[in-house]
Amino acid sequence: MIAAGETTSEQVVRGCLDRIEEREPDVKAWVTIDPDLAIAQARSRDREASRGPLHGVPVGVKDVIDTADLPTQMGSAFYAGYRPKVDAACVALARSAGAIILGKTTTAEYAGSAPTVTRNPHALGHTPGGSSSGSAAAVADFMVPLAFGTQTGGSVLRPASFCGVIGFKPTFGRFNPVGVKPAAESFDTVGLIARSIDDIELTTAVLTRDDMRVARVAAAPRVGLCRTHLWSTAQPETRDAVDAAARRAEQAGARIEEIAWPASFEDLTSARATINAYERVHGLAYEWQFARDQMTPQTRKVCEAGLQVSAADYIAAQRLVRSRRLDAARLFERVDVLLTPCVAGEAPAGLDYAGDPRFQEIWTMLHLPALTLPTHRGPNGLPVGIQLVAPMDEEQRLFDAGRWFLSVMA
Amino acid sequence: MIAAGETTSEQVVRGCLDRIEEREPDVKAWVTIDPDLAIAQARSRDREASRGPLHGVPVGVKDVIDTADLPTQMGSAFYAGYRPKVDAACVALARSAGAIILGKTTTAEYAGSAPTVTRNPHALGHTPGGSSSGSAAAVADFMVPLAFGTQTGGSVLRPASFCGVIGFKPTFGRFNPVGVKPAAESFDTVGLIARSIDDIELTTAVLTRDDMRVARVAAAPRVGLCRTHLWSTAQPETRDAVDAAARRAEQAGARIEEIAWPASFEDLTSARATINAYERVHGLAYEWQFARDQMTPQTRKVCEAGLQVSAADYIAAQRLVRSRRLDAARLFERVDVLLTPCVAGEAPAGLDYAGDPRFQEIWTMLHLPALTLPTHRGPNGLPVGIQLVAPMDEEQRLFDAGRWFLSVMA
Repeated sequence: MIAAGETTSEQVVRGCLDRIEEREPDVKAWVTIDPDLAIAQARSRDREASRGPLHGVPVGVKDVIDTADLPTQMGSAFYAGYRPKVDAACVALARSAGAIILGKTTTAEYAGSAPTVTRNPHALGHTPGGSSSGSAAAVADFMVPLAFGTQTGGSVLRPASFCGVIGFKPTFGRFNPVGVKPAAESFDTVGLIARSIDDIELTTAVLTRDDMRVARVAAAPRVGLCRTHLWSTAQPETRDAVDAAARRAEQAGARIEEIAWPASFEDLTSARATINAYERVHGLAYEWQFARDQMTPQTRKVCEAGLQVSAADYIAAQRLVRSRRLDAARLFERVDVLLTPCVAGEAPAGLDYAGDPRFQEIWTMLHLPALTLPTHRGPNGLPVGIQLVAPMDEEQRLFDAGRWFLSVMA
Repeated sequence: MIAAGETTSEQVVRGCLDRIEEREPDVKAWVTIDPDLAIAQARSRDREASRGPLHGVPVGVKDVIDTADLPTQMGSAFYAGYRPKVDAACVALARSAGAIILGKTTTAEYAGSAPTVTRNPHALGHTPGGSSSGSAAAVADFMVPLAFGTQTGGSVLRPASFCGVIGFKPTFGRFNPVGVKPAAESFDTVGLIARSIDDIELTTAVLTRDDMRVARVAAAPRVGLCRTHLWSTAQPETRDAVDAAARRAEQAGARIEEIAWPASFEDLTSARATINAYERVHGLAYEWQFARDQMTPQTRKVCEAGLQVSAADYIAAQRLVRSRRLDAARLFERVDVLLTPCVAGEAPAGLDYAGDPRFQEIWTMLHLPALTLPTHRGPNGLPVGIQLVAPMDEEQRLFDAGRWFLSVMA
């Protein structure tokens, strides 16, 4: 609409700022907003030729992702007021395509498991999920159309599911990670949260300098229903959502096949704890040594666990995961995408616990692209997303299947 | 010797500083040295109980690796005077074990291919290699016993070979990369330069929190002589060095087997160019957009090449490399380590060209641990190293073989 002259960047940005002014006291999705800076940038975009597909579009950025013109505080007291010298790669690429960084969204400390102050816009007494809490809540509450997050376990897809929006984690490495505070570098992946597949697809094209895609409804996909070893631990609303999505897809012409879950994949859950703790305490080596007193108990605990992991145990866990990544290709032998639970259930009540990452982290570890779609509601009326997963590098297939699912479930 | 009370950290540090004062005007290995800070830290170490295996030991740090108490300038005019908030993980871990950061060593801009001012201590008119130019020259010239480098193509092993010291690149990810300026994140690996295997091994144990190893001479290894598709492009001194090392090893009891080089591995060289350029221009997205005028022509050129690489070409190259990584395991079916050329030949004359990375980059791309040993000399009397390569995660095997080779070739 900006490109077509139907609105201006300034109008869009002011609309976002108005919504934030109205709702932020309740939702608390933002750490830093500089309205004057955002409006000045919007006016500049409105005066100039288009820089690219995001020209004039406001974007929220998780506060573990560096920005040169706004503080980047990592959800940490130690980084209070910290100003990076340069933008993270994803931020610079978005700016090159015309985006306006509207502000920084709340994050769990170092993208870990400490709680944030952010509240679920669908029910203020419930967590929005984490660690990309603010990005999910801000997009869900119409404060911004698009936000960057990061996923090391389930930090993009879980909050997106809890907040009823679309969350996308690409293939590991697909989006350049430079300038993002590392958590566990074997898994860390930049991801996107938005309210439409088109916006996810457009931004993916910008961040990878890929050809621009045209929104389209593809043919019905071949879908692998993949319950995983965690199925019995999912709450009824999650099992109902996945089963209902499978039924609806089949009615609409998709071929559905149950995918046997290899017993060997069950050990991904424990391997993740080993790798995550070892990499976190090494990646935070400075903070652990010199700023431990400014760490939350949750971060201290994972660092202490990391110090108990031997180098040999870490290497063994890495070997296991590398082997499972190869095996994962077989899950897709006869299907285009997997349909699988995204979350244990609805967003839990309270803000102290941002939810269970096990349903998301499997796919993060396997480096596979994953998408959550806001298709269902749970017993409290809160959103419950389904998850689609595609083979490595097959983002196009994932987007096509996601658009198809949304069209048949609307 | 510090631990045994035979010397003090202050004496060691002062010895290094004296050597630097004498030789630095010729060698130009250092970007930043703060002698007062180093001596103050040495005195602190001398007054306190041992923090760990590097207690009181001075270390040089390549200037793309963040240090909280010294500038980190990336070999770049744009980063002149830049002060990171925290140490890189490897620096913090070394400090936790008692190390003293003596100073920052010269680096090619952003660890790329631009030349540095550093001169080869063996022949001041010759390059020391790059991009870890200062780390290699400083260790070779007895200015410091140990230095950190980074290798994305051949930036640790090549300068180590050119300068006649030991260079070590571990398995990808073995040393935590947090706080190191990324170059091409699929290949970037922190490495070590030292004058003894013991020092490499000790520091590896510190950086991985692995059990301390005891220096030992292991049994003669089974050695795969691996000439690669680059053999015919190597200069005579390199072919002589590898052949002589194989003969000597065989005489000393090693079993030598010629390893057939898969024809499919030849395409690693072009895949590397594709991935390297694409990842560099994305990782430098901010610098490219906002500070291009402060880039060297070499860096601009690789960024321009990166802009010509499509997302599809990048993904295809990544798939190719992932496939070759799996195939590489077969090279080790009947041998413990590979013996292979490290460099095209002696350090070239002049400082404008830091040498050919092709002999090192194959192994960097394959994520395999590699070691160069200063075993030979070329026609100008300059060092020519051999290279040993082990399977993924088999650093112990690499160190054992390295120590054995040094013992039989002494």
